[in-house]
Amino acid sequence: MTLTVAIGPSSFAQENDMPRHLLESAGITVKENPYGRRLTEPEIIAHLRECDGLIAGLEPLNRTVIASAVPRLKAIARVGIGVANVDFEAAHEFQVKVSNTPEGPIEAVAEMTVSALLALNRRLIPANEALHQGKWKKEIGAGLRNARILLIGYGRIGRRTAELLSAFGARILVCDPYIEAASLNDGEKLVSLEEGLPGADVISLHAAGETCILGAPEFSRMKRGVTLLNSARGNLVDETALVRALDDGTVGHAWFDALWQEPYTGPLTQYPQALLTPHIATYTRQCRLDMESTAVRNLLRDLGVSART
Amino acid sequence: MTLTVAIGPSSFAQENDMPRHLLESAGITVKENPYGRRLTEPEIIAHLRECDGLIAGLEPLNRTVIASAVPRLKAIARVGIGVANVDFEAAHEFQVKVSNTPEGPIEAVAEMTVSALLALNRRLIPANEALHQGKWKKEIGAGLRNARILLIGYGRIGRRTAELLSAFGARILVCDPYIEAASLNDGEKLVSLEEGLPGADVISLHAAGETCILGAPEFSRMKRGVTLLNSARGNLVDETALVRALDDGTVGHAWFDALWQEPYTGPLTQYPQALLTPHIATYTRQCRLDMESTAVRNLLRDLGVSART
Repeated sequence: MTLTVAIGPSSFAQENDMPRHLLESAGITVKENPYGRRLTEPEIIAHLRECDGLIAGLEPLNRTVIASAVPRLKAIARVGIGVANVDFEAAHEFQVKVSNTPEGPIEAVAEMTVSALLALNRRLIPANEALHQGKWKKEIGAGLRNARILLIGYGRIGRRTAELLSAFGARILVCDPYIEAASLNDGEKLVSLEEGLPGADVISLHAAGETCILGAPEFSRMKRGVTLLNSARGNLVDETALVRALDDGTVGHAWFDALWQEPYTGPLTQYPQALLTPHIATYTRQCRLDMESTAVRNLLRDLGVSART
Repeated sequence: MTLTVAIGPSSFAQENDMPRHLLESAGITVKENPYGRRLTEPEIIAHLRECDGLIAGLEPLNRTVIASAVPRLKAIARVGIGVANVDFEAAHEFQVKVSNTPEGPIEAVAEMTVSALLALNRRLIPANEALHQGKWKKEIGAGLRNARILLIGYGRIGRRTAELLSAFGARILVCDPYIEAASLNDGEKLVSLEEGLPGADVISLHAAGETCILGAPEFSRMKRGVTLLNSARGNLVDETALVRALDDGTVGHAWFDALWQEPYTGPLTQYPQALLTPHIATYTRQCRLDMESTAVRNLLRDLGVSART
């Protein structure tokens, strides 16, 4: 019997069709997302009918959805890290295997963090905007050499971010209650949040969870003009406290890719010193291809099919 | 007798007064630029009256100016690399020593080149602009891992740029008629311009001189959608051919910090896919301080004064 796999993400294999080819060359029938957008609960229920596996995006994979798709559904392979949309208990109960691609986003997110910092440091946006309006206005920027950068969170993304910043000669301070100094790279220094905040020229968030780490008390300890970077979660920062810190000059520049609500239309849009991107830190061709290919391999493995490549 | 040193650049020691302190603590009387802008010929002649040395910017230091300042003027120390504003023959004839700071800009220019490429690759400017207008629009970008980057010119800046890009996993191709393959870093590949152009995802100019390297014939050999970076000299690229290449999609994105005329108001200002900056690749606090301190040390050495620090 031919196996059938439903595709959740509308972006799957759009930039490079290698992941789809990997499924097809393993003899799988591929059922595309017919809507070109994220599926709703009734849509994903219909989409999963007579499917053995799912390449999953962020569509709701709750108990109702999973129960409707079993016993035929055997495996869900999420393209990406986050699996908050999957009811693990139900999946376990109905013997549906669930996988994700935790390695995929590391390089893209670390690179995006450095991109945002360099753009802010070197004043690329105001300089470019002025020149396109015919204004030649030189403004002094900051280099990374000897800049003190506090990384809050030192998982895989934080660690890779530290490596990239070190290549530019930055000094790395790490705050992460779950790691030991011995696991840091050479030249990096483990500090508490209290120790790290006052001297940092740049603070970059790479922590997990949704608990607020930077609120009014933390902003009050920061160096005037600090640059704040957030590719992790909006909720790690108190939005109201941040707006106040931008107003009073505590925070000189900020980059947010992860926001409090998405799509975001909040107060940060009024601040030219805030660089805002729509949660695209993983949006590189390389990263999409990596994550999609890994998800396909995970799914083939969980369905007991051997890949041809 | 107390020595007197005139300061040319209006920006001298503005961000950090250490370089001025270095002069004063060596017992030098410092004569500031009174105009807050680049001095004209009559102004620099007046400014150099009864001065033993000059910390030079880009003011005209031609035969007339030098002849008017000798025999008291003994040394000129340029803050920066370029010395096209200095008449070397006249300086030699009147026994005025001339120095520059060739090391100063390396880090800042290499870092700026990487900053511009990352900003273009990751679509920072359109994403930020859209979000500030309340539009949430995700666009896929390009990562640096495995990107093929052709560096035209492999002097100190080109070499450092290659090192930084390699840290991100880019593949480096080098075109420079003056170097041997043996002097490249590991993983870098020496190619001719003909070999390098067709496969490059990114082309970055780090060559000296004013001779056009990229004209219509070269654009016709480039990969569709290539990104072009120029921190070196506007004249290395044929402006008309570039505009045509932007129009027909050969060049997907371009960054120019060095332009054909400065201030620049030319056709590139009409292209949103052109990132334009007003010759600020060396404008970091670290770089200014480095170059100013080095110029002061060069001047003290050429005046036979020992520095106190």
